[in-house]
Amino acid sequence: MSIVESFNAYRSEMNEKILSEDNKVMKRFFSLDTQAYQEGALDKTTKELLGLVASMVLRCDDCISYHLGKCFDLGVSKAQVFEVFSVANIVGGSICIPHTRRAVAYWEALEAEKNA
Amino acid sequence: MSIVESFNAYRSEMNEKILSEDNKVMKRFFSLDTQAYQEGALDKTTKELLGLVASMVLRCDDCISYHLGKCFDLGVSKAQVFEVFSVANIVGGSICIPHTRRAVAYWEALEAEKNA
Amino acid sequence: MSIVESFNAYRSEMNEKILSEDNKVMKRFFSLDTQAYQEGALDKTTKELLGLVASMVLRCDDCISYHLGKCFDLGVSKAQVFEVFSVANIVGGSICIPHTRRAVAYWEALEAEKNA
Amino acid sequence: MSIVESFNAYRSEMNEKILSEDNKVMKRFFSLDTQAYQEGALDKTTKELLGLVASMVLRCDDCISYHLGKCFDLGVSKAQVFEVFSVANIVGGSICIPHTRRAVAYWEALEAEKNA
Amino acid sequence: MSIVESFNAYRSEMNEKILSEDNKVMKRFFSLDTQAYQEGALDKTTKELLGLVASMVLRCDDCISYHLGKCFDLGVSKAQVFEVFSVANIVGGSICIPHTRRAVAYWEALEAEKNA
Amino acid sequence: MSIVESFNAYRSEMNEKILSEDNKVMKRFFSLDTQAYQEGALDKTTKELLGLVASMVLRCDDCISYHLGKCFDLGVSKAQVFEVFSVANIVGGSICIPHTRRAVAYWEALEAEKNA
Repeated sequence: MSIVESFNAYRSEMNEKILSEDNKVMKRFFSLDTQAYQEGALDKTTKELLGLVASMVLRCDDCISYHLGKCFDLGVSKAQVFEVFSVANIVGGSICIPHTRRAVAYWEALEAEKNA
Repeated sequence: MSIVESFNAYRSEMNEKILSEDNKVMKRFFSLDTQAYQEGALDKTTKELLGLVASMVLRCDDCISYHLGKCFDLGVSKAQVFEVFSVANIVGGSICIPHTRRAVAYWEALEAEKNA
Repeated sequence: MSIVESFNAYRSEMNEKILSEDNKVMKRFFSLDTQAYQEGALDKTTKELLGLVASMVLRCDDCISYHLGKCFDLGVSKAQVFEVFSVANIVGGSICIPHTRRAVAYWEALEAEKNA
Repeated sequence: MSIVESFNAYRSEMNEKILSEDNKVMKRFFSLDTQAYQEGALDKTTKELLGLVASMVLRCDDCISYHLGKCFDLGVSKAQVFEVFSVANIVGGSICIPHTRRAVAYWEALEAEKNA
Repeated sequence: MSIVESFNAYRSEMNEKILSEDNKVMKRFFSLDTQAYQEGALDKTTKELLGLVASMVLRCDDCISYHLGKCFDLGVSKAQVFEVFSVANIVGGSICIPHTRRAVAYWEALEAEKNA
Repeated sequence: MSIVESFNAYRSEMNEKILSEDNKVMKRFFSLDTQAYQEGALDKTTKELLGLVASMVLRCDDCISYHLGKCFDLGVSKAQVFEVFSVANIVGGSICIPHTRRAVAYWEALEAEKNA
């Protein structure tokens, strides 16, 4: 299983468990999290780029993987995601480098999956 | 070995190594860390819930696992830990979601271990 | 104007401006933020203590002030908030000390206001 | 002096002092920080929006003010900055709300200055 | 009153209040915090430099001020503190720049006080 | 493969991929990151200790591993790295303990590799 498949599988399985618990705040927060990236005054791609840079400066690998997947599906180019990485590294510092390494590996897995 | 057992085993092994090194600040800090969760003006359970929410907003999986184990032993219910997760997700944002996923998996492992 | 009054005045004024802008995600998030602290499997006071410790380890003075105000109104004692501070300082480290100083000043302002 | 003027004045004064010290790493980092927001595979406006959301989830008021100023000059609308705020609040949590309040006050000061 | 004097006055006043409250964890943590910077396998100056860089990447102005004062008293040069700033800015990113500005202002106040 | 070897192998492989992409900001940032630890007003060892403590309070295991490797090569003793850990734990709190555990394991792997 690729890192893309295993990430998606675990994410789906556990999200389902979270949502099956009767906690309204969690459910509404998940729904709001989806809503935040919908087309509005800013387009979807810009919002996914925002989600990506925010995830990288906050250094969450899973969140980075998720937004990379979305960016990839929306047709963001490798040069563009690298510019997001560069802003993240300048704002967030070298502490973001290990996350950038894993992000590059994840992006390659997304490309490999598409070409498979 | 379950995720509960492997977490506890690694934690014990490495804590022992840290404490066997003659560093007084580390030793006293470990002792103070234990003391902070003792019964006082607030009861033990409340303090473990505080430790859990603090661990989740600071996004430390090992710390979350540790406090989940303590909460489980003190009889905290699943509905109650989910309310802690909900406060953590609202205060700390969606960046806490991946940690919530792993927390739910850990809680299930605690339940499975008890029922085994 | 006391630090309690000036905090509340600025908070109310700016919250109103945020909510008057037609951004549904922000409005729903504000509403969800209120909902997260409602009575449930955990009581209101416990939830405010959770909000307080989360705010302190994330080091947000305004959030600390807000939850101190709520705790004060719910009858939490000074000894109890100090135990929250102690958990926060142990989990979050000495970097929380300056926030603890300002939290103590805010608590005193809450007491002074009540006695005025 | 408006909050925009006082921010810019202090920023310029202190940046000059930092750059006048003969520390090459600091000088090059400042230069790289400027370079990161130049037109490239992503346009300038998108990069400023990235800088803004990163600053908000990392909760740095001065960085938020700086990028708000840049966004304002590039013609970003109030509805658009509010969508950045909404992504930041969802990703970073309610801990970003106090920074959002100050960001709204700063945006109003930018508008007031333009209309003066 | 200079920024050095007002920082020290508020710090002393509030520390006294914290320590006068009968909370043993807080008292012991304050004592341990002092102990951590004592001469040992590393000398005092190195430890204060460690405290300074940690404070800057965690972005706590009061902690930065405190360690700058200690470094100044121990004879650390301006070129040396700037090298600490440069490591902090590279590791922690441009988000540290506003704290660096205020750190430079505080260092100048320490120099001015000495020359007064 | 030891944890030292696997860390170094992944780091080298991915750094090469990052640098092979034509993104000037990333390349210059990597170069500046190296430059920040060069001998200057502070010696190399002190700077690596600064990098280590900054990595630990920011809680980045890969960054901790990297600086531990550098410290080890520069002849820093185990007692000295433990004093860095103690400052990091006091400043950054118990949330640093799991990273300290892994740091001790990495240090042991460095020692084992040398003795092999």
